[in-house]
Amino acid sequence: MALGEFEIIAKYFQKPINRPDVITGSGDDCAVLSPWKDKNLLATIDTLLVNRHFFEDTAAFDIGYKAVAVSVSDIAAMGGDPAWLLLSLTMEQAHDGWLKAFAEGVYSCADRYNLALAGGNLSRGPLSVTTQVTGFCEQGKQLSRRGAQPGDLIYITGATGGAGLALAILKNEISSNNFNQAEIKALKDCLWHPEPRVTMGKLLSDIATAAIDISDGLIADLGHLLNQSRVSGVLYLDKLPSSAIMDKLPEDVKNKLQLTAGDDYELCFTVPSSARVQVAALAKLAHCAVTEIGVIEEGAGLRILNADQEMKLPCWQGYQHF
Amino acid sequence: MALGEFEIIAKYFQKPINRPDVITGSGDDCAVLSPWKDKNLLATIDTLLVNRHFFEDTAAFDIGYKAVAVSVSDIAAMGGDPAWLLLSLTMEQAHDGWLKAFAEGVYSCADRYNLALAGGNLSRGPLSVTTQVTGFCEQGKQLSRRGAQPGDLIYITGATGGAGLALAILKNEISSNNFNQAEIKALKDCLWHPEPRVTMGKLLSDIATAAIDISDGLIADLGHLLNQSRVSGVLYLDKLPSSAIMDKLPEDVKNKLQLTAGDDYELCFTVPSSARVQVAALAKLAHCAVTEIGVIEEGAGLRILNADQEMKLPCWQGYQHF
Repeated sequence: MALGEFEIIAKYFQKPINRPDVITGSGDDCAVLSPWKDKNLLATIDTLLVNRHFFEDTAAFDIGYKAVAVSVSDIAAMGGDPAWLLLSLTMEQAHDGWLKAFAEGVYSCADRYNLALAGGNLSRGPLSVTTQVTGFCEQGKQLSRRGAQPGDLIYITGATGGAGLALAILKNEISSNNFNQAEIKALKDCLWHPEPRVTMGKLLSDIATAAIDISDGLIADLGHLLNQSRVSGVLYLDKLPSSAIMDKLPEDVKNKLQLTAGDDYELCFTVPSSARVQVAALAKLAHCAVTEIGVIEEGAGLRILNADQEMKLPCWQGYQHF
Repeated sequence: MALGEFEIIAKYFQKPINRPDVITGSGDDCAVLSPWKDKNLLATIDTLLVNRHFFEDTAAFDIGYKAVAVSVSDIAAMGGDPAWLLLSLTMEQAHDGWLKAFAEGVYSCADRYNLALAGGNLSRGPLSVTTQVTGFCEQGKQLSRRGAQPGDLIYITGATGGAGLALAILKNEISSNNFNQAEIKALKDCLWHPEPRVTMGKLLSDIATAAIDISDGLIADLGHLLNQSRVSGVLYLDKLPSSAIMDKLPEDVKNKLQLTAGDDYELCFTVPSSARVQVAALAKLAHCAVTEIGVIEEGAGLRILNADQEMKLPCWQGYQHF
């Protein structure tokens, strides 16, 4: 029987840790490390592979940009400040033009988040990029997936589904005919140049009870947050943020993308119901759209309500790593 | 024209770093990071790939053990204490037995060096293991490749060539007939279970002027140290440490392995000539064999002397990443 990602981690890679400087090991967006007083370190690692996370013909700039953004987003989901990047690149051949564009993509994203490329590794092999980002947060202020309480409100930043729509168009699963060039460009930006919510994550670290970045799809990642917080959630379909582009799709196609498509790297977070005004104020400060999309309840599982009717979910799932 | 590893790094991945907390970026065994007073962080990343760094049929335990050891060795080469491990694993299928043995290998090496597996990533793809290790050293006490001075003595820990001989036997380039089972086992241990010289590295941090770990071969890695220190070196062939196993080989085969085979993960370091007694004392303390093998001179390049005759090097090179 094939094992899933979380089963593999739980079964083989979660031996008890006996270093007192490890606050949180695997099971969250980042490891939380506490070598000294006052500040914690946050550390994350991600690998993007050709034919799995990008295509043979994906622009080198886009691969470089996205690889960095994906790891920065994990730091954002913990409320941290990204600081240092290590990069391990494997490729079959060293093409000057490809490397130039790839490095520009890497630095373009890294510079934007004041992230220093501090080291790396090169090997010959199938094209893959592993990014490791370390950042900071105030001691004990890191956001985790584990603190959501019944009564808390569920929010997301930005909107979901755009990256998934771009991917569906690239794979010819959805026709591009309905969209003009500017719209196609905007969608591709969702897919290849996601915007990790670092500023919003940092501002949330004082008030959010739990947070996760949406890499595998809203349902899947909110599901992780609910499971780890040992609570259930209700999600209001009609509250999901959309866009003029997404609204061109048939309702069911749009909903499926909003709920299950990954790669948007928005934050999904929970706050006490008393914090509504504060969330709006912080979002304004961060120049970041936020939308209240549901509520935390006791129990387990996730219900999706469509105009007060509980929605039967088809076999939709988030991105399966295995 | 194909670019080499160091050209690629210099050309594309060494933009000036403007974060004051990055002391050393790429170009040494580890990045040196200084987020707070008193201690520095050392950070390194390495990727091992199937059919490149190990074989399809290499035991999963060995792959896991070695992947961790390789990164720990980079910390040792900087005189640091390894602390935390992040692991990114890509594999085509999730086999229970393989994962169990692989995780045992990872933990076996990590536990030995008090290294906590603090996080990671799993993806489907060609088998590869990326290890990222972060460690500590006293502020300003990190060993670098850059401090060797004319007159300094060149040392290595342990002996080189064993891992290369194991590899040559596995590839049927050298017959295994000359070696008994215990010898074959000892050689395979050199290749798959190298022993990063963490204790010796830490002790050396007070007296060594430069250090590097030998991953690509003695000539290649000593060459990096000489280049980065802007000095030349003389290496005495008859002083190279050998073993009963290596002595079974024809002299030229033995020498080639000692000088150019990678994967032993011994330390090559330089000390002022006044430190000979101190090196011996520290080696005893660390239970680590060390051998004086040469001397640093002014100029550039590496000369190898065989009984006072300068040796003409064939087209021997270290391990080529590209």
